[in-house]
Amino acid sequence: MPLYGAIEAGGTKFVCLVGTGPENVRGRVRFPTTTPEETLSRAAAFFQQADEPLLALGIGCFGPVDLNPDSPTYGYITSTPKPGWQNVDVVGYFQKTLGVPVAFDTDVNAAALGEHLWGAAQDVRTFVYITVGTGIGGGAMVEGRLIHGLIHPEMGHMRIPHREEEDPFPGICPYHGDCLEGLASGPALAARWQEEPHRLPADHPAWDLEARYLGLAIANLVCTLSPERIILGGGVMHQTHLFPRIRHVVRETLAGYVQHPALLDHIDQYIVPPALGDDAGIFGALALAIQVTRSA
Amino acid sequence: MPLYGAIEAGGTKFVCLVGTGPENVRGRVRFPTTTPEETLSRAAAFFQQADEPLLALGIGCFGPVDLNPDSPTYGYITSTPKPGWQNVDVVGYFQKTLGVPVAFDTDVNAAALGEHLWGAAQDVRTFVYITVGTGIGGGAMVEGRLIHGLIHPEMGHMRIPHREEEDPFPGICPYHGDCLEGLASGPALAARWQEEPHRLPADHPAWDLEARYLGLAIANLVCTLSPERIILGGGVMHQTHLFPRIRHVVRETLAGYVQHPALLDHIDQYIVPPALGDDAGIFGALALAIQVTRSA
Repeated sequence: MPLYGAIEAGGTKFVCLVGTGPENVRGRVRFPTTTPEETLSRAAAFFQQADEPLLALGIGCFGPVDLNPDSPTYGYITSTPKPGWQNVDVVGYFQKTLGVPVAFDTDVNAAALGEHLWGAAQDVRTFVYITVGTGIGGGAMVEGRLIHGLIHPEMGHMRIPHREEEDPFPGICPYHGDCLEGLASGPALAARWQEEPHRLPADHPAWDLEARYLGLAIANLVCTLSPERIILGGGVMHQTHLFPRIRHVVRETLAGYVQHPALLDHIDQYIVPPALGDDAGIFGALALAIQVTRSA
Repeated sequence: MPLYGAIEAGGTKFVCLVGTGPENVRGRVRFPTTTPEETLSRAAAFFQQADEPLLALGIGCFGPVDLNPDSPTYGYITSTPKPGWQNVDVVGYFQKTLGVPVAFDTDVNAAALGEHLWGAAQDVRTFVYITVGTGIGGGAMVEGRLIHGLIHPEMGHMRIPHREEEDPFPGICPYHGDCLEGLASGPALAARWQEEPHRLPADHPAWDLEARYLGLAIANLVCTLSPERIILGGGVMHQTHLFPRIRHVVRETLAGYVQHPALLDHIDQYIVPPALGDDAGIFGALALAIQVTRSA
């Protein structure tokens, strides 16, 4: 049986996998993201040890990345603040080292694709996947196609109402201060409350505020993309008590304007965790690899 | 030569047109939106007088509308606040009266399609069309497909930062108060400044505030949809001095985070007026009619 390779290339760790889907994983490894040279060669070495030659490799990558196939820097990580990783040719490295077709997208678009193929978005064609963790990012599919456009979405940098009299925390985004990521990412929680987020108890005021910001952002996504489902993953969303709070804020914010049973009657099936859990990204990268062989 | 019919169905006026494109208009009429019976029959009578039988009819309609082909109320105007127009079967009326295929979408999706076929978005596949007038609405195409999703986008109801200490105006949206439409539509301008918007001089503080709200919303659209172009139409945008102000706010808000020449070097070609001017909607409706015969 032909095998595919997948990389979830994150700013703190890389996950590499060989297989054909969630039911057939033939190998898997995880290691920290250090220098590009060390990290990429470690990934390549893993794939070179696979039982069978790979048909293709899929990469879901932290960004910003260049996704324009006509660009001379297609497949590069571009203007990331991560030291050493600016202008790294990720796709070129693996094409050269492994000699197979390489599919490339953002980590969140990959996760969206994974959930579409094997997870919580199998029955819809227009939906959003959002990760709330070290950063906040979003991938989306519209009528069955992942959004790329000018570059790719950067949903975490959306501006939302921030009432400074109630919440004087200025936000931690180095570019925007109090954008969504600046107010509601894991590091923002840690900085605001001077505590690791997972140590804040469920009745801590941190969580109502967190749900408020995420709910406002999701209501904006409903107004903009009209998604049929919204999937919320990432480390912060391991706090499962956030889901009912966020759903409440979304309904309150939309105030009955968008009249659809998904929002009015079944919002618990509308705003959901990823069915693949923390594996949405790596299986999404695998889905990218499978897609590229089909379209070739 | 086969002819197509088009209706731009607005809350205050209907425009009907017969032709094949902007270069070949065979008839056109415009009348106020009164009762559904009177307005729809007046439109039907116009098409029945056409020189040749129509191949198809396209309708760009005020909303909310039901765009789900599998729904029993497909082609209806649904929960509009406009008296008498709730639950009106627009598509069914014209199918029965004219006996031709009827294509149906929102007024702003139609305008987006018109600009894609004949206007300012011919060279891009992912873009947004926004109208700022009596209301604020947005239509969008992603990778060549109009966004529908759950219902359709309602971009005017996005929440943006509203500093009440600087601008205590509470907004006029009956659902949300200070959503984008509540703060920045034509009626919001009129209510805040107690003056018809077109009578406010270009150096009035109204316009910097207007540009601020529209610029914040457009920056959010850049983060969410990653559009390759943004087209701003509608009556308020007849104030052409708004364009440079809005472009300035968008760049200031994104703060260099989205690094692309379109935003950094050529923003005057990125945020633009519709090339079809106030005719984007009616020609978009015509484009819907042409599309439906091709896909049939």
